[in-house]
Amino acid sequence: MKQTELFTKTFKEVPKDEVSLNAQLLIRGGFVDKVGAGIYTFLPLGLRVINKIENIVREEMNNIGGQELLMPILLPKDNWEETGRWNVEEMYKIKDENLGLGWTHEEIITPLMKKYLLSSKDLPKYVYQINTKFRNEPRAKSGVLRGREFKMKDMYSFHFDEKDLDEYYERAKQAYLKVYERCGLKEKTYLARATGGEFSESLSYEFQTVTPAGEDIIYICKDCGMGFNKEVFEKRCECGCESFVEEKSIEVGNIFKLGSRYSKVFGLKNENGDNIIMGCYGIGISRLMGAIVEVFNDSKGIIWPKTVAPFSVHLISLDSGDLEIKAKSDEIYSILQNSNIEVLYDNRDDKTAGEKLNDCDLMGMPLRIVVSSKTLKVESVEIKRRKEEKAELVKIKELKDFLKNEI
Amino acid sequence: MKQTELFTKTFKEVPKDEVSLNAQLLIRGGFVDKVGAGIYTFLPLGLRVINKIENIVREEMNNIGGQELLMPILLPKDNWEETGRWNVEEMYKIKDENLGLGWTHEEIITPLMKKYLLSSKDLPKYVYQINTKFRNEPRAKSGVLRGREFKMKDMYSFHFDEKDLDEYYERAKQAYLKVYERCGLKEKTYLARATGGEFSESLSYEFQTVTPAGEDIIYICKDCGMGFNKEVFEKRCECGCESFVEEKSIEVGNIFKLGSRYSKVFGLKNENGDNIIMGCYGIGISRLMGAIVEVFNDSKGIIWPKTVAPFSVHLISLDSGDLEIKAKSDEIYSILQNSNIEVLYDNRDDKTAGEKLNDCDLMGMPLRIVVSSKTLKVESVEIKRRKEEKAELVKIKELKDFLKNEI
Repeated sequence: MKQTELFTKTFKEVPKDEVSLNAQLLIRGGFVDKVGAGIYTFLPLGLRVINKIENIVREEMNNIGGQELLMPILLPKDNWEETGRWNVEEMYKIKDENLGLGWTHEEIITPLMKKYLLSSKDLPKYVYQINTKFRNEPRAKSGVLRGREFKMKDMYSFHFDEKDLDEYYERAKQAYLKVYERCGLKEKTYLARATGGEFSESLSYEFQTVTPAGEDIIYICKDCGMGFNKEVFEKRCECGCESFVEEKSIEVGNIFKLGSRYSKVFGLKNENGDNIIMGCYGIGISRLMGAIVEVFNDSKGIIWPKTVAPFSVHLISLDSGDLEIKAKSDEIYSILQNSNIEVLYDNRDDKTAGEKLNDCDLMGMPLRIVVSSKTLKVESVEIKRRKEEKAELVKIKELKDFLKNEI
Repeated sequence: MKQTELFTKTFKEVPKDEVSLNAQLLIRGGFVDKVGAGIYTFLPLGLRVINKIENIVREEMNNIGGQELLMPILLPKDNWEETGRWNVEEMYKIKDENLGLGWTHEEIITPLMKKYLLSSKDLPKYVYQINTKFRNEPRAKSGVLRGREFKMKDMYSFHFDEKDLDEYYERAKQAYLKVYERCGLKEKTYLARATGGEFSESLSYEFQTVTPAGEDIIYICKDCGMGFNKEVFEKRCECGCESFVEEKSIEVGNIFKLGSRYSKVFGLKNENGDNIIMGCYGIGISRLMGAIVEVFNDSKGIIWPKTVAPFSVHLISLDSGDLEIKAKSDEIYSILQNSNIEVLYDNRDDKTAGEKLNDCDLMGMPLRIVVSSKTLKVESVEIKRRKEEKAELVKIKELKDFLKNEI
């Protein structure tokens, strides 16, 4: 895409009430726009990131047998009253209507599956959606990490018995770890024991990404690398364990064994009259985007991992007022496009070299390719990885081969 | 996909309060589930249709320069008060909050673009989203044609002057006609003159698909094929034209010249101090799905056009209790999958031939391929197009070539 066509621009300043680093960088780079506290527009560059994360999550859920559907956002009061969750603080309610906005979907998926799961032959089944969710957050100050409106993947599994749930729960855990690995967060993300919270009485797993911006605290065992959230850790502490590191972290996912809590309420049973056993599995897509920005940045801007970057290459034409350089830059842009490389082409002729290079660092594509009179003199382009300092010259005729190993 | 893995089933009956044909067929076939009046879950088969329609719309919007973003659903009261649209009947409001649910997005896109459109050099620009929208419909009885929650594509264009808008408006009109053509609705869809309604004072275009389920009435000129909605037609009638046909129709899209109505309110001006000129362009994605079902069906079920069908082929194994036939059916399933053909494989062994063929007609994939002891005797499968009566035998070894021309 040509940068002159992109409607967004970069900013030096951010709204004064925006205190979180992720939102500051995302707003400055033209990835999101702040509409209100915890409410953001995903601009074209930001939507590309969201779509890439969504596709990674979708692929991993499909790999463990997930079937995608899309449940509504407007949810009837009756369903929530059945489970006693109509009057929870998190839920936005519609004025003068018996409708609330979805912050989780057990109340919809359980009665739905009751229509289709008629016998144990129909089990197990795994269904998920990627949808916008809403939670009434009185203090939404963490950018896209904690929105009042946010994108989430929620999966629900249905089993004949606890044993089958246990097996699937383990597969889901592995699929989740794969998601964080593919998003570049493997080294920073820990599996952590947690309580079941709102959802379940048994212990659950959270996936926690370590960063100073985290609102959670986890305790990581120095030996095995297992994490514990505060509540679970305090109970454990009584046993006298001491080899833990305390870290701030962001909860980037959680998996719960729901057991029969919701199937009991809605009468979802197998042919023997036993309650069907359920699990639920959540990943905040927009929160994951925020976590990635919190982990991968420097003083100049964002450093997108390859797998979620809006574009693989930021091609920058310097001296593009010069017709010959412009023509050569256009040619290189065509070469990249014809190689199916996702490229953002800074063809602006009203910006200085410094402005272009600063924007490039702020926006954070993995690879910067500069075309200038200097590089063209040696029939080359200058290539620099965003996460490294050194740049190198690559002959234009060798560019395609070079990029094959890079992208 | 194997039908034994799909969690949905077909139904003979529909909820008693569901009076619309589109929802009856979509519920019976396992495409949608009704959660409440005008509120539906899109099940895996239905979501596949929605995604295909979305992609057609997305491609056509990208073809006319559209840049995709995603605006929030929760919209601040302040923005709506600026345009005087806070207290409209359509809008759902959040209880105890100054937030309403988006039913249109001029109030968000106009202030957003003010941050980026700094001079006439930045014009024109075209941006769109595909998002869930909400309208308070007291009588939501038309299935997915008129949801209280629905999927919509809304595009907004920004121009230096009326002339530029006029040119783009024409391009958008052509892109819309392309969308309906690609969805199989070309013959049934008319361009119709309408008033600007809520959005604009000038005349606008609607795109109306003729079907008995339509809630609108249009008057189609027998000579030129141009349509007029009732309001416009009644004014025209005074001129004495008489060669019109009156038809019931569904509004499947509309394009409005907004002029400076919203740019004036939010101070979106060019460097000369002139208001920027705007257009807006809507297509209801889920409504389009409903319109397709209303147009393409028979007494047995839905007849999906190729371009939006959830699967291209419904492969049906009869006598699949027989191990040899099962093995051969599995083999043909593999052949189809390896040819990148989207295939739903009815491998159920607890259904009769009649049940399988009835389900196949109800679900409406464009091509039915039957494998049975009878067809295998002549090393063939039986192929039947959903919209035709006659079936033909095709040799298994010629199947791939046959399908090349078909899909």
